[in-house]
Amino acid sequence: MKDEDIRFWSRISYEIMEEVNEVISPLIGQKKADKTVKMGADGTPTKLIDLAAEEKVIEILENTGRPLTVVSEEIGELKLGDTPSEVVLVVDPLDGTNNAVKNIPAYAISIAIGKISNSIKSMTTDDLELGFVKNFATGDIYNAVKDRGATLNGEVISTSNEDDLSSSLIGAYVYRADMEKVDLLCKMIRRMRILGSVAIELCYVAEGIYDAFVDVRGNQRVMDLAAGKIILEEAGGLVTNEYNQPLLKKLNVLERTSIIASGNRNIHKELIRILGEGV
Amino acid sequence: MKDEDIRFWSRISYEIMEEVNEVISPLIGQKKADKTVKMGADGTPTKLIDLAAEEKVIEILENTGRPLTVVSEEIGELKLGDTPSEVVLVVDPLDGTNNAVKNIPAYAISIAIGKISNSIKSMTTDDLELGFVKNFATGDIYNAVKDRGATLNGEVISTSNEDDLSSSLIGAYVYRADMEKVDLLCKMIRRMRILGSVAIELCYVAEGIYDAFVDVRGNQRVMDLAAGKIILEEAGGLVTNEYNQPLLKKLNVLERTSIIASGNRNIHKELIRILGEGV
Repeated sequence: MKDEDIRFWSRISYEIMEEVNEVISPLIGQKKADKTVKMGADGTPTKLIDLAAEEKVIEILENTGRPLTVVSEEIGELKLGDTPSEVVLVVDPLDGTNNAVKNIPAYAISIAIGKISNSIKSMTTDDLELGFVKNFATGDIYNAVKDRGATLNGEVISTSNEDDLSSSLIGAYVYRADMEKVDLLCKMIRRMRILGSVAIELCYVAEGIYDAFVDVRGNQRVMDLAAGKIILEEAGGLVTNEYNQPLLKKLNVLERTSIIASGNRNIHKELIRILGEGV
Repeated sequence: MKDEDIRFWSRISYEIMEEVNEVISPLIGQKKADKTVKMGADGTPTKLIDLAAEEKVIEILENTGRPLTVVSEEIGELKLGDTPSEVVLVVDPLDGTNNAVKNIPAYAISIAIGKISNSIKSMTTDDLELGFVKNFATGDIYNAVKDRGATLNGEVISTSNEDDLSSSLIGAYVYRADMEKVDLLCKMIRRMRILGSVAIELCYVAEGIYDAFVDVRGNQRVMDLAAGKIILEEAGGLVTNEYNQPLLKKLNVLERTSIIASGNRNIHKELIRILGEGV
């Protein structure tokens, strides 16, 4: 992506993050926010607060007047403009919906952007170049540009060097999982967290707060992890599935994957050994 | 406890919550906060931020001039004043230390207070009458007085009526646990969180954010749960061990227990069946 495009889409992304924050703020902790208003394009229920967030995203993107395609949870894929799309935005307008409606302080927006050189159909998560995650509850903004590093509120961040599982803090979705796979992990690590927002938890690995984040349920959506993946990789971390393969997922709402996200190679290897190879 | 004593100790507790907040604020997310400065009376390492918080608690209690006993993580049991103690304060000056030093927004102070009629040695968690928990990251203050209900920031709170595990949101410490016990739970619930602050997570059950909270590792300290237990029971919830027995733990830093804390009788029964009886 050219510098001027990076600047343009960064400005738009900041506008989206700020305006979605304003739209959802009055709904945080409110019962009505949790009301199912329809079924999303990804097959999960759309809550009122999700819809409010997504509508604001679309509105701002429409106002840019640029030809683009948005991939988002509720709407699926939406093409804006009459000419071929220049960029694709993979957006989760509100990651951690259940936290937002309960006022648990871990909910965020996730925006990942890539230039379309040929067709979206041939693109994967690896072709996205810009990533933004705003943790609405704390106001923290994580950002990365491919090959240019990652920042938190403008300060450069990097991952943890912790490579001993028995001293590690790991985010791990171990419920409704294959317990044979996760039992060993649960026994080996020092501390575990489950905050309920993948976007934030990937950024926690990027920032070195978590040493790793894992979800081997095969259930993670591209929208939730696209931005966090760029941010984490730019901060020095690794993202693969449990067999140490690149995610390479298509940019659509129906794609699902497992995820092993680590701060460094050594701990990644350990996690693959336990969760992928089962030894 | 007499009304005037409730008023007095409430005022002191609010002063403690406010002043500890001021002391720890500059240390949140700081590496130096995590420095081990000594071993606590409970056998776990005392971090710089823990010590700073506890010293402020002791200072304020000394300034009351009242004869009292404090039970707290680092100092163990401390008697203040020359005459027999009128009250006992069971305090965790900073619950969720690891979150505080990493700036994960879930760390709190927990204060539980009871009148001493005979000797502290004969008292248990059930004899405590006042409970205060301040979630420092959000500013929320939970409070309960025995037989008078529980509040969050002054508004009356009550527990959830959700009694179907497959729709429930549960806080559950499933790592480094007996995996046979927790596997079934992990499979049956809808959503799980691990925030890393027992005091806050008990208050989440009290408020109806969580439907239940469980830790069957037998490792919970009296200081961490004393206030949350009062707040949860006053909000309509139940607290027992995994065999459905009352906690009845002595007020000292070495006591440890498992905990099943539920919003209502039906979900409690289900959790006991799974975690205590193993069926």
